[in-house]
Amino acid sequence: MAHLTHDSYGKSGIRLTKVTRHADRHDLRELTVDIELEGDFAASYTDGDNASLVATDTMKNTVYALARSHPMESPEAFGLALAAHFVDGNAHVASATVHLAEQAWARIPVDGAPHPTAFVAGSREQRVCTVLHAREGTEVVAGLEDLLVLKTTDSAFTGFLRDAYTTLPDTDDRILATSVTAYWTYAGGEHDWNACFDAVRTAMLDVFARHHSLAVQQTLHLMGTAALDACPAVTEITLQLPNSHRLLVNLSPFGLDNPNVVFVTDEPFGLISGTLTRE
Amino acid sequence: MAHLTHDSYGKSGIRLTKVTRHADRHDLRELTVDIELEGDFAASYTDGDNASLVATDTMKNTVYALARSHPMESPEAFGLALAAHFVDGNAHVASATVHLAEQAWARIPVDGAPHPTAFVAGSREQRVCTVLHAREGTEVVAGLEDLLVLKTTDSAFTGFLRDAYTTLPDTDDRILATSVTAYWTYAGGEHDWNACFDAVRTAMLDVFARHHSLAVQQTLHLMGTAALDACPAVTEITLQLPNSHRLLVNLSPFGLDNPNVVFVTDEPFGLISGTLTRE
Amino acid sequence: MAHLTHDSYGKSGIRLTKVTRHADRHDLRELTVDIELEGDFAASYTDGDNASLVATDTMKNTVYALARSHPMESPEAFGLALAAHFVDGNAHVASATVHLAEQAWARIPVDGAPHPTAFVAGSREQRVCTVLHAREGTEVVAGLEDLLVLKTTDSAFTGFLRDAYTTLPDTDDRILATSVTAYWTYAGGEHDWNACFDAVRTAMLDVFARHHSLAVQQTLHLMGTAALDACPAVTEITLQLPNSHRLLVNLSPFGLDNPNVVFVTDEPFGLISGTLTRE
Amino acid sequence: MAHLTHDSYGKSGIRLTKVTRHADRHDLRELTVDIELEGDFAASYTDGDNASLVATDTMKNTVYALARSHPMESPEAFGLALAAHFVDGNAHVASATVHLAEQAWARIPVDGAPHPTAFVAGSREQRVCTVLHAREGTEVVAGLEDLLVLKTTDSAFTGFLRDAYTTLPDTDDRILATSVTAYWTYAGGEHDWNACFDAVRTAMLDVFARHHSLAVQQTLHLMGTAALDACPAVTEITLQLPNSHRLLVNLSPFGLDNPNVVFVTDEPFGLISGTLTRE
Repeated sequence: MAHLTHDSYGKSGIRLTKVTRHADRHDLRELTVDIELEGDFAASYTDGDNASLVATDTMKNTVYALARSHPMESPEAFGLALAAHFVDGNAHVASATVHLAEQAWARIPVDGAPHPTAFVAGSREQRVCTVLHAREGTEVVAGLEDLLVLKTTDSAFTGFLRDAYTTLPDTDDRILATSVTAYWTYAGGEHDWNACFDAVRTAMLDVFARHHSLAVQQTLHLMGTAALDACPAVTEITLQLPNSHRLLVNLSPFGLDNPNVVFVTDEPFGLISGTLTRE
Repeated sequence: MAHLTHDSYGKSGIRLTKVTRHADRHDLRELTVDIELEGDFAASYTDGDNASLVATDTMKNTVYALARSHPMESPEAFGLALAAHFVDGNAHVASATVHLAEQAWARIPVDGAPHPTAFVAGSREQRVCTVLHAREGTEVVAGLEDLLVLKTTDSAFTGFLRDAYTTLPDTDDRILATSVTAYWTYAGGEHDWNACFDAVRTAMLDVFARHHSLAVQQTLHLMGTAALDACPAVTEITLQLPNSHRLLVNLSPFGLDNPNVVFVTDEPFGLISGTLTRE
Repeated sequence: MAHLTHDSYGKSGIRLTKVTRHADRHDLRELTVDIELEGDFAASYTDGDNASLVATDTMKNTVYALARSHPMESPEAFGLALAAHFVDGNAHVASATVHLAEQAWARIPVDGAPHPTAFVAGSREQRVCTVLHAREGTEVVAGLEDLLVLKTTDSAFTGFLRDAYTTLPDTDDRILATSVTAYWTYAGGEHDWNACFDAVRTAMLDVFARHHSLAVQQTLHLMGTAALDACPAVTEITLQLPNSHRLLVNLSPFGLDNPNVVFVTDEPFGLISGTLTRE
Repeated sequence: MAHLTHDSYGKSGIRLTKVTRHADRHDLRELTVDIELEGDFAASYTDGDNASLVATDTMKNTVYALARSHPMESPEAFGLALAAHFVDGNAHVASATVHLAEQAWARIPVDGAPHPTAFVAGSREQRVCTVLHAREGTEVVAGLEDLLVLKTTDSAFTGFLRDAYTTLPDTDDRILATSVTAYWTYAGGEHDWNACFDAVRTAMLDVFARHHSLAVQQTLHLMGTAALDACPAVTEITLQLPNSHRLLVNLSPFGLDNPNVVFVTDEPFGLISGTLTRE
């Protein structure tokens, strides 16, 4: 016989634009919000009895209503407020998980100065966070996705295992390109979410640019270590680094050499993952 | 101090086309394969010592080489062979996880009969499976993604909780549209993977079409129960059902009624999840 | 000095679901509609004087309002009604172009029969049409996009030009895969839009499956000729056939042959275009 | 009888990474190249006689081979060289069209200075150009796509035409968000392609930020005029400005006002087009 052993539900893809109107400038945040609740909802699954369900349409309304007055100085702060709302207001809700993804906007430079009310979109990179508010406590995981970086030198890959299916040659100078995904967990309590985000991001970029890579694995380890060093409030970080291969094109059929000049993108990608924990 | 507490790596997005040439017809399979290994790879992370790394390029080669002779009667069977290859051939590999996603192709009908060597792509739906081969045993999880279904009646949503942010009215006749994602776990051992897949898929579609839905949650529960009933080898199933809202358009400003005739798609979507386990 | 030499505007991405409720079954159409007007709108561009602008929000409302009563037996018929509405109701509108793209839905089979009110999405293929209603007349262009087809044999490519940058060998047996895009123009007047669409589509698939291809160019020519033969109301057809390469994998480094069994998808794609006109 | 009235073919999606290695820094360009030829290719369509076909695989090889030595100081210059190659080397080729799209990379700042060999991806914005080299002459069209901009004030939309389907109220303060697509044509001859591109882009951004918009149409006209003013070599510019609506959320059901603070993105989008030509 079948038994319902886990359930959750919520609203995803709630798109929110918040404009904060200061006298001398406007601030702009654009977020996509997902909300997921766990709790005492089994009757809806087993009997279609919806009395305990917060409608997902209500969740959407709640996001917009709470956004009206929340200062929204960071995604983490707004996520904490949202998650607390659902748990505090409903005794039968065990936990609320709020995920936020932010599209970055920069001010358009006009005559060398940032314009107060006109913006241009930043890169594909997204600042994300996931706030879990349960009866027993709160956890904040922040992160970033789709941060594309590439170094044209200082990357090698040699001495790997060779078996019957190995054709890749050793290389001591290749392009290293990746799209950084990183999620890090904060110790309990409030932190300066924006300062921590910036410190972690800068530390990872700095290591990526400076170090001589012997493997994407090693690059990941150094980036994670630097992130933990950069923000004492971070207890753990997980990185996923796809190896977005740029392969040297063989130009010898055309009588040409190719001393690391012309490359082609190859589609299947290595994917390197690792978690570093503060001792 | 930072400590590496988890690591894994592999190759993703390996695209494979396999043609099996029978006398009277060709069979076609197109798969995208991801491979992930866990094991004794820490030296690559901490020291850039790659001696224990199976290069991800080697993984790609291995997929193509093993595909040459494998009968590939199902994604599950090929995934099991691939995962075993990496664990059996490398004492320092603790586990291999192989994920396969299949694009369906149907034969083009010509003069009322399926053509032996010409194909047309099926829907966006993907048949997927994840095979985990660890030293201590093997687990096969099969599933499907992006199976879009819609019913124009026999769906209600009433009696849900109302709070200060609730504006949604009760409805006893709405469109129910979703994109089914389902993953199910098999008991250990070999099974008729294709027959089980078909039985689970058919059972879920059958319930979706026939039942009168009181909530997406209830629909999910019935679909999961039917899936477990349809294939005794399945021990557990997890479903994710986005509620792809079709909202009734308000035509009253134009002096028109709208008795469930004209709808607009609304972007933020409910997302209902649940796991059913065989007792 | 700058001069406005062309302008047009409209609304794009209007998503419409229409349910027609018969006694024994429901019919379902899902369309995405784009509307574009040309006419006397220059004052809005040059002076911000909007008095002649039909707001794009009004266009959206109009689509939903007209959908209420239109039988919508085909995208072409609904497009004609929409385009006429904007031109007939506004003397300063010179022409209206309406583009419609339809997502196909099929009935879920239950106990061997198609269910009257439950549907499953078809393939990625889209049926499209573009209706131009100008003061001087009307033109209907129908078409399809993203019809993926593949043949595992009966495709060769030999005898092409060789220059200093040619490395491709001749082949007399390869996989031919493409994603058909076709647009065809109807002679003036009303036609049986659905019957013509089916006839053209079937003719193209039939040729694709049956013929022995000497080049994608030749395949295109045969498909276009068959389309014109299949529907006398069609005066011209344009096809675009990407060559979605499946390349034979070189397995010789692993001591294996590969007699057209294992292929890999290569990303850059040939793109072959041609227009055939009825004499 | 069917007659082939137009044909062309080529290779699309050729992804190229070019690294230029200076003593003190590396320069990086990443381009996606499409090539299309017109000429005397009818025999391939009608008879499968491929003797005059430059294989699309050869086109791909040619891109990589020419990239080896070309300085690639701009996409336009490389496009001109590529297009000339195919026309000059093949008497039966009437014209070659080369389209290039560039993904921007910026240097990672390290200790306040741009790193010489490490890069971070820019925004989604793409710099594009299309070079047509025909026997009778050459045309260069440059442009940009997916430049997302938003202004939080100084945008109105009032006084538009009202009909039976109009519900949109006038507004004198709304968010204006768009994704700029612009293509401009250069007068014949060589120009400083990079300086012109920067001048046109800056002029359009500057106008967008500064002006008080009475309609997207008016914004388009001002941006186009500014572009023509910024670069005398540009003879014509076409802009497409989707109106990426941010709609004010109605918070009155929750007892809240909403003085232009909280907005939701609405999916169907206005699309405003216009061409400005230098007199």
